[in-house]
Amino acid sequence: MLVDHLARAADRVETYLSGVLDEDATPDRLRKAMRHAVLGGGKRLRPFLVIESAALFDTPTDDALTAAAALECVHCYSLVHDDLPAMDNDTVRRGRPTVWTAFDDWTAILAGDALLTLAFELASRPTPAAHPDVCAKLCNLMARAAGRAGMVGGQCLDLDAGKRNEPATPDRAHIARLQAMKTGALIRYACEAGAVLSRASDEELESLSTFGKHLGLAFQIADDLLDAEGDAATVGKATGKDAAAGKATLVGLLGPDQARRELNTAHRNACAALAPFGAKADTLKAAADFVVARDR
Amino acid sequence: MLVDHLARAADRVETYLSGVLDEDATPDRLRKAMRHAVLGGGKRLRPFLVIESAALFDTPTDDALTAAAALECVHCYSLVHDDLPAMDNDTVRRGRPTVWTAFDDWTAILAGDALLTLAFELASRPTPAAHPDVCAKLCNLMARAAGRAGMVGGQCLDLDAGKRNEPATPDRAHIARLQAMKTGALIRYACEAGAVLSRASDEELESLSTFGKHLGLAFQIADDLLDAEGDAATVGKATGKDAAAGKATLVGLLGPDQARRELNTAHRNACAALAPFGAKADTLKAAADFVVARDR
Repeated sequence: MLVDHLARAADRVETYLSGVLDEDATPDRLRKAMRHAVLGGGKRLRPFLVIESAALFDTPTDDALTAAAALECVHCYSLVHDDLPAMDNDTVRRGRPTVWTAFDDWTAILAGDALLTLAFELASRPTPAAHPDVCAKLCNLMARAAGRAGMVGGQCLDLDAGKRNEPATPDRAHIARLQAMKTGALIRYACEAGAVLSRASDEELESLSTFGKHLGLAFQIADDLLDAEGDAATVGKATGKDAAAGKATLVGLLGPDQARRELNTAHRNACAALAPFGAKADTLKAAADFVVARDR
Repeated sequence: MLVDHLARAADRVETYLSGVLDEDATPDRLRKAMRHAVLGGGKRLRPFLVIESAALFDTPTDDALTAAAALECVHCYSLVHDDLPAMDNDTVRRGRPTVWTAFDDWTAILAGDALLTLAFELASRPTPAAHPDVCAKLCNLMARAAGRAGMVGGQCLDLDAGKRNEPATPDRAHIARLQAMKTGALIRYACEAGAVLSRASDEELESLSTFGKHLGLAFQIADDLLDAEGDAATVGKATGKDAAAGKATLVGLLGPDQARRELNTAHRNACAALAPFGAKADTLKAAADFVVARDR
């Protein structure tokens, strides 16, 4: 079962990160805020994708764990900063108070900064499995996926429209660009990371990159459908916020029925990209099914 | 003249960074905020130290520029976040409006995040001069210096005391730890980076690390003296803020005269650590003189 696979990976990543967060002379308040941000559950989809894309090449979970945990730190930092009053102003995340709510704004800003920095400390940490050249490549790809032309850039486009309260004139190309940057880049990197870790061929890396691209799009449409139609208690965070904030989504532009058709197309394209790996890719295919069907 | 050396390095770094900031598909608003944060002048002391510590081993400036620019991105991001209303609430920096004042809070948060990410994109970028193993080591050292047990951790200790408005009972060991983390770690890394780039011996790396440690302490005492005694127009930012914010400094604990004696001791120790390099280290020694004598 995919949910068991996911839960197993989540456990491994959580245990690993808990150990990492106890390392080093981190001030108490900062450590507590970082732990709150990282250890509060969550699907751990991104580290799961790192682990499973590495498993395609028989790279054991142990050898993918540092890169997987590094990526989860990037994801968690982005949630901490996005939730801030100056950004999305969210008080609940994964059914718990957000970091700024549980601590305060400045602690949340610093906890996010520390998690982003920790991500690169981990990704560049030499391990018996990851030689320095692999570490350098992972750091570079992760930075590009997370930065100005990736996740942070996408968040800027997203907030820019919402904060200005511009009339909602979403344009399909703009929404596609925003999505590819804001959530797509990091999910795509997750799928590429396993290939980089395993020193896979350029063709194999390309196949996983294509899989990640379509999976990221499917993930975002599913997320937007949940926001538009989901129940806050099940989803674990406030819903109906996109429309209220004037954010541009495919669901808003096309309506839920057409958006669901696009979701199914993205799912089909994602699975097609895995064809070269045959039955070895069954778990990644199941992950794509999960993304389409998830209710939280 | 040291000021000419500094100005030359600042020019090189500024030109390099300006080119880097024009790369990639960065959203306009984000690019403008990043440029405001990075290209607003400043002494560029940290990249200068990278360049000059590399020059000790005859590594040309061109080959040290990427690592130097990466470190400056870390420094600039930290200023952008520190200036936020939720943190130090500063409106002027280097005689210009801070990023959140010129744009807004959310843009400043994202610009800082993007600069920190860019720092690791640059440090991990393979160049003809820096092989992947050197890149991975630079990323790892920089992350440790900038993160939870370094700069971000120090900022947390600093704000924690100030925001709680605790009675001012600064303790010498606490102040030393705070300083070593908040400003010391990054300056120390700057001096180590030249040795790492140049594949210097462990002893040479250790000498530069010791130099950087004492230089960082001298820098902080000088900075605190400027805050306590300097003139805002000359310094280019508000002064007298440490005492008002209840921040723990050596100047506050020992008084300016004793603090000045500690400054001189740190300067002497810094210069002594350069002895193994002979006359080749004259520029770094002049940098230590500059740090002690600076008025802004």
